[in-house]
Amino acid sequence: MTASTNKMHAKPAPDAILAGLVAEFGPKTVLSDPADMQRYCRDWHGDVEGSALAVLRPADTEEVSRLVRACAAAGLAVVPQGGNTGLVLGGLPTDAAGHVVLTLERMNRIRTIAADDFSAVVDAGCILAAINAALAEQDLLFPLSLAAEGSCQIGGNIATNAGGINVLRYGMTREMILGLEVVLPDGTIWNGLSTLRKNNSGVDLKQLFIGAEGSLGIITGAALRLVPKPTRGETAFLALRSLDDVMALYALARRECCDLLSAFELVPPEGLTFAKEADADFVPPQIADAPAYALIDVAATGPIDLRAMVEAFLETAMTRDLVIDGVLAASERQAAGLWQIREGMIEGQALRGPHLRTDLSVSPSQVAGFITESIEELGRRLPDCLPVAYGHVGDGNIHLNVIPPRGLERAARDAMLYEAKTILNAVVDRHGGGISAEHGIGRLKRGDFEARRSPVHETLLRGLKQLLDPADLMNPGCQLTSPRDGADVRSLG
Amino acid sequence: MTASTNKMHAKPAPDAILAGLVAEFGPKTVLSDPADMQRYCRDWHGDVEGSALAVLRPADTEEVSRLVRACAAAGLAVVPQGGNTGLVLGGLPTDAAGHVVLTLERMNRIRTIAADDFSAVVDAGCILAAINAALAEQDLLFPLSLAAEGSCQIGGNIATNAGGINVLRYGMTREMILGLEVVLPDGTIWNGLSTLRKNNSGVDLKQLFIGAEGSLGIITGAALRLVPKPTRGETAFLALRSLDDVMALYALARRECCDLLSAFELVPPEGLTFAKEADADFVPPQIADAPAYALIDVAATGPIDLRAMVEAFLETAMTRDLVIDGVLAASERQAAGLWQIREGMIEGQALRGPHLRTDLSVSPSQVAGFITESIEELGRRLPDCLPVAYGHVGDGNIHLNVIPPRGLERAARDAMLYEAKTILNAVVDRHGGGISAEHGIGRLKRGDFEARRSPVHETLLRGLKQLLDPADLMNPGCQLTSPRDGADVRSLG
Repeated sequence: MTASTNKMHAKPAPDAILAGLVAEFGPKTVLSDPADMQRYCRDWHGDVEGSALAVLRPADTEEVSRLVRACAAAGLAVVPQGGNTGLVLGGLPTDAAGHVVLTLERMNRIRTIAADDFSAVVDAGCILAAINAALAEQDLLFPLSLAAEGSCQIGGNIATNAGGINVLRYGMTREMILGLEVVLPDGTIWNGLSTLRKNNSGVDLKQLFIGAEGSLGIITGAALRLVPKPTRGETAFLALRSLDDVMALYALARRECCDLLSAFELVPPEGLTFAKEADADFVPPQIADAPAYALIDVAATGPIDLRAMVEAFLETAMTRDLVIDGVLAASERQAAGLWQIREGMIEGQALRGPHLRTDLSVSPSQVAGFITESIEELGRRLPDCLPVAYGHVGDGNIHLNVIPPRGLERAARDAMLYEAKTILNAVVDRHGGGISAEHGIGRLKRGDFEARRSPVHETLLRGLKQLLDPADLMNPGCQLTSPRDGADVRSLG
Repeated sequence: MTASTNKMHAKPAPDAILAGLVAEFGPKTVLSDPADMQRYCRDWHGDVEGSALAVLRPADTEEVSRLVRACAAAGLAVVPQGGNTGLVLGGLPTDAAGHVVLTLERMNRIRTIAADDFSAVVDAGCILAAINAALAEQDLLFPLSLAAEGSCQIGGNIATNAGGINVLRYGMTREMILGLEVVLPDGTIWNGLSTLRKNNSGVDLKQLFIGAEGSLGIITGAALRLVPKPTRGETAFLALRSLDDVMALYALARRECCDLLSAFELVPPEGLTFAKEADADFVPPQIADAPAYALIDVAATGPIDLRAMVEAFLETAMTRDLVIDGVLAASERQAAGLWQIREGMIEGQALRGPHLRTDLSVSPSQVAGFITESIEELGRRLPDCLPVAYGHVGDGNIHLNVIPPRGLERAARDAMLYEAKTILNAVVDRHGGGISAEHGIGRLKRGDFEARRSPVHETLLRGLKQLLDPADLMNPGCQLTSPRDGADVRSLG
């Protein structure tokens, strides 16, 4: 890493820089037509639109390196982008003259699968579902499961340290990564693509890039830790009397289902309403009305009698009067139907238009109190809004979303949602929680993140950025405030 | 972090510095009597003795900070030390005038245990076994298990990213850490003691210190991720026809026992000999003679029929002709007896006197080839030595030790063991393996580590060191060569 020198002579105009990139790398690699660029310059929900000079589509790691060097020489900032499914504007370019998007979409090769070693090496642009489709042929699983799996790319999953529904069993993305290949901000390629399960050789450099959201380098390849693909599973949808009972049930499930518990989701009663709004043909399960539901998955390979285990667990839960009603799926189709509630709930919220999405976390023992207090406070201060609390409560991760009343002007709506966010952040602070459990910081939560970190934490983060990216050319404005973060952004919707 | 300035005027003499420390912190905190200091200045095996000006024993984090500041002001280097059970000289002081040992042994308080959250916060000086004794009262487990658990401290476990026998189920220490408290090389306290399971707030700073062996700061506290303490287990000791069969059995066990497989250890036939040498009363299991044995543990909580699962697995293994004989423990006492082979094997080797201990790793599919090739090559080039290969082969982690013939002069013995190490490192390189799976680098493997890292890797490691410890005062010479690593070291034994 060498510090860049600020050249004092006149910089070439953006048009000339762009023409130079096209001439060197060709129009297949360098997109500059606004129509071609639009989908890379919008966030996933279509709420926000940014702007860039060009979109770069390298074909391999070597070309990523050459492009990064060319951008550094021209003083262009690079915004790395995976499947553009992020929720915190971490991949949004914000400067029509000074930012380029670099997408890994053409780098989608599964390099190797080593079934006996439970490992694989993939290009960072591989789509998560495509990786698991290839692994399934060898009865293997990369156990990251999230709503965007059909569109998100593994490089983006790693850069954001994605979570999802299986974290309580398999951990965050960080825990599933054996090695990385990274193009550093100066264009150097760092090859850390080891597939060794145990390799304690000094400071673990790959950890710097996991969760950095592309602000310290571009992940171009990854070595993945795999597990045997479960051959059988059981899915239950349970009605409970209170949030306290949901968390008591979780504590019981963690012990009774041991390390075979794969998912434990809180679903509020509104979840069934949203699922119906998302799909008129949706048939809700025949289950008692209740203030809270739990959606639970267990899964295994080998000669374990999962059904007996789940039935024994449910019997204990009934005996302790934790569960008032429940459905245990009798087939894979029924299990998929139960999971449709979880997925339809998200789609139904999206159909209600722009709303506040949060990604909060507290300790599991704080979940019930946190949700109750949040909804009470929102009800008192924003009585026209509809709060919806759901999520991966076994990890203490709650998506407490707030849907504004219909028909508001955009400015009034935005002000209301900003107030809702402020209310929720204050409640989460009182519970010692975190403002980003699994989505990351990006640009959207940068201010809230800055307001919560200590001076020593700030110094360390700034020091790392300075060490790896002294010219601040790699995703400037993501996670850390930067003068290079532009203003070419507009709110849509 | 501020860079220290090299003062040009004369430094105080070591005696004066020592007197100043004693005056400021008292003789309970600052040991300087050689007899009191000796055990902190020797490695665990008693093979090597180093030297220090003093041993510092702070009572709390604040005092660690003050001591570090005082040492920095005096230009003294600090060598952090846990239970001093490390195997790579990572905690060995090497300069009688310029190094102090800082031991966390007085910081052994369990700060909090949150049973419902499966988390605990502990002082870094807590002994691993003491933590698990306290957790067991609440049916909880911190699933790190290694031979030194009765002496090693959690801070050292984290600093070395310790492995052990349960890694295949629960991961390395890194994966069990939720948060850290660290005193940085300039004395600043970084409080990252979050117990949140999901907290994606930017670059994960704690990862810098896990595996850094105290070279970037001193871990003073840790938030631990816990699991339910298994209520039942099964232990099997199986005789196999070949190393290839051992690894085929592992692949089968990984699927048939799913995520309930806790340990899968390779035991060579010599293991039974060593166990007998370690304990004359040891009664070996009644099992066929074989070229390789596997020691397997499964464990669970909840209503899972573990015995049925293991019996079904063993039946499949027998049907596939993988296992020629076996013992399935009928009681906890019998299970402990089987594990005594594993433990006695280590003690028996120690009784043979100084020998080469290695900690190599390859992909699981390479294990059999790697061991076979290594033993062949050692046999050809060092026919008088006894190689012993065992370890956590489910993770590809092999301890391939080499015992020299009796009665050699020290110089001849050391030369022979050096040659053995060189041979083994060359074989591990050919198999794309690692020279330190779980023990770390320390001072012992520094040269071998340096010889294997790329220039870009070197630049990144040096950059991190420069960022956090610009004056090179924190464990100099550990992991990275340093002019501050002294020469006050002698080989014993």
